[in-house]
Amino acid sequence: MGAVKGKSKQEVLKALEEEAKQVVEAIEKMKNPAVKIPLRALTNVYFDAKQRMIKLGDKTGSRTFYNVNQAKKFMQTMLVAAQIKSLILQNSPTLDTRQLFYLLRGTMPNSEEDKFDDQDESDAIIEDVEVIIDALREELGLIAVPKGVIAGPLVIEDVASGDIIDYTKMGAAGGAIPASVEPENFRFKKCTADYILVVEKYAVWNLLNQQRYWEKNNCILMTGKGQPARAERRLLARFEKELKLPIYVFCDMDVYGYYIYSVYKQGSINLAFFSEKAAAPSAKYIGFNVDDYKNFKLPKTALIKMNDDDLKRIKEVKAYDWFKSKEWQAELDKLAAFGYTIESDALVAKSIDFTSKTYLPEKIKKKEWLD
Amino acid sequence: MGAVKGKSKQEVLKALEEEAKQVVEAIEKMKNPAVKIPLRALTNVYFDAKQRMIKLGDKTGSRTFYNVNQAKKFMQTMLVAAQIKSLILQNSPTLDTRQLFYLLRGTMPNSEEDKFDDQDESDAIIEDVEVIIDALREELGLIAVPKGVIAGPLVIEDVASGDIIDYTKMGAAGGAIPASVEPENFRFKKCTADYILVVEKYAVWNLLNQQRYWEKNNCILMTGKGQPARAERRLLARFEKELKLPIYVFCDMDVYGYYIYSVYKQGSINLAFFSEKAAAPSAKYIGFNVDDYKNFKLPKTALIKMNDDDLKRIKEVKAYDWFKSKEWQAELDKLAAFGYTIESDALVAKSIDFTSKTYLPEKIKKKEWLD
Repeated sequence: MGAVKGKSKQEVLKALEEEAKQVVEAIEKMKNPAVKIPLRALTNVYFDAKQRMIKLGDKTGSRTFYNVNQAKKFMQTMLVAAQIKSLILQNSPTLDTRQLFYLLRGTMPNSEEDKFDDQDESDAIIEDVEVIIDALREELGLIAVPKGVIAGPLVIEDVASGDIIDYTKMGAAGGAIPASVEPENFRFKKCTADYILVVEKYAVWNLLNQQRYWEKNNCILMTGKGQPARAERRLLARFEKELKLPIYVFCDMDVYGYYIYSVYKQGSINLAFFSEKAAAPSAKYIGFNVDDYKNFKLPKTALIKMNDDDLKRIKEVKAYDWFKSKEWQAELDKLAAFGYTIESDALVAKSIDFTSKTYLPEKIKKKEWLD
Repeated sequence: MGAVKGKSKQEVLKALEEEAKQVVEAIEKMKNPAVKIPLRALTNVYFDAKQRMIKLGDKTGSRTFYNVNQAKKFMQTMLVAAQIKSLILQNSPTLDTRQLFYLLRGTMPNSEEDKFDDQDESDAIIEDVEVIIDALREELGLIAVPKGVIAGPLVIEDVASGDIIDYTKMGAAGGAIPASVEPENFRFKKCTADYILVVEKYAVWNLLNQQRYWEKNNCILMTGKGQPARAERRLLARFEKELKLPIYVFCDMDVYGYYIYSVYKQGSINLAFFSEKAAAPSAKYIGFNVDDYKNFKLPKTALIKMNDDDLKRIKEVKAYDWFKSKEWQAELDKLAAFGYTIESDALVAKSIDFTSKTYLPEKIKKKEWLD
């Protein structure tokens, strides 16, 4: 719950000031100023099998000023932290990391040396600051571009504007997921849904939304349009932790669809710190899967032949710790043996109503999912 | 106006039936059945300098059945047209072109021959059917994934659901643009805006939305998140033709930004037929441009050095007919000579309020734009 609740602006400021204070104190004592940084390297990323999420381990590094290899990065860390603090104090609108890069650029006083050579440098430091003070970039006032849409019996308050948004009244478009869904900005007012259905693809979402699936099945219908952006993942984590609703994920029956499910459920390796706060470990994979093909008597026109890349990727995914359960290993073996993929959009080949009227309700009723 | 008004489902059905009728009549008369197809090849695409949009010329081809090279395509044309007709008669939800491909797949009766080998084949035929009956795929019930969001004093009715959507009440997210913005689905109820501001980038939209730019300047604020999808372009055309509002486009000062402006304004070559119906030829380029850098005293930290690809692309864009005006040729020359790009997000380097409080209002007030 703590991870989802998030830090208030005051708490972020306090954490930034505490870091800065110990640096200043070191300088005053003529010591080498340093910041302790949880290591973001792959060697410090692991799958917590009990909590079922990808997490950052407890290895830390120390970044010091009097060190030729670290002096620049140390300075950059201070510059990013100071810029973020200044934005919060100004009550600035949220910015994306490219805008922050432009605020940070330039040379040091009395020097020709650029503070940041490119955005990659500032992006890496932003992630450092996130882990140093244990706050997501969204809590620091930074955003990434969101992609997804939702529909269903949920009412939220957009805190800054005071707008009340009812996702049963958003028409064919659905409601856009905003860049920041932190509780400070995006407050759940009312939710009467029985579950959350996440669908991988927009075309499937669009079909189900027109068929009023969310109304007939009393759920929240969401898509991240393929590989989800940060906002959709974070929102799903909030749905799980705060609304305590079951979450079902519906993807393509291919290794890429299975992997997208795993990103929603337990996060991804390269953003392990974010994954802890944006994972929804209770999410179930509702399909499409290999047994469904026979059980639901799908026509052959739904099948696409796999290629070598698909088979190679299946092997890679099989090796991930979070796919090591007996059920998933068996599913991946079945998929490789089957030799075909079935996209979630292909279910229209059975009938246009099949997904909404037969497939999804039956799977959910019979609790036929992979965990 | 006709182009924007669009065809009703009844008109689409009628057009499909007329095409089919002449094919049947030919068969009955033992003649070679044929359909006349406006040529979609580049040789039939031109820039109409008077109307200022990219258009399809009047060359047509004939696709006949008794022709070894055309028999399969002729059959595919009939199959696509029949499938679309069937969906309209069923009052089907809209589908994307991949879903349609799955509906079309399979072998012909008593044959091992696949009707369509892959989606590229069905997509090409869909475009043929669009031009044959002079209707956009959206009017045929087919969609592409939309990307954009809007905010401002506009109220619409989503016809299928009856939902009334007020884009002044959409919070930080803004209102998602739906996949189909055809007048049959998406009806303008009320608009009190003075103009439409299209911004290339989501981060800029996000900043302006938080600063309530649309409220303070009484406009509609829209983004297509980079290169716009079909829905954003079509919506802009409707804003121009039906609401008769001035349109200003704000992009990066680089050749890619200039080109995105041109896509909103006059369309693109490879979708010339769509361009005619989705262009907004009155749109003005409000910036950022090369003179702005000096006039507004931007800091050097806003500059990014151009590379060889950028310079090569400037030469290509200079050669397009729709960039042949004296003003645009001069602007492109200035850009190449300047040697730097300035992204629209970089304006925060001047100040976070600069874009919303100084730059955009001044440019619009002084009518400093490129046409």
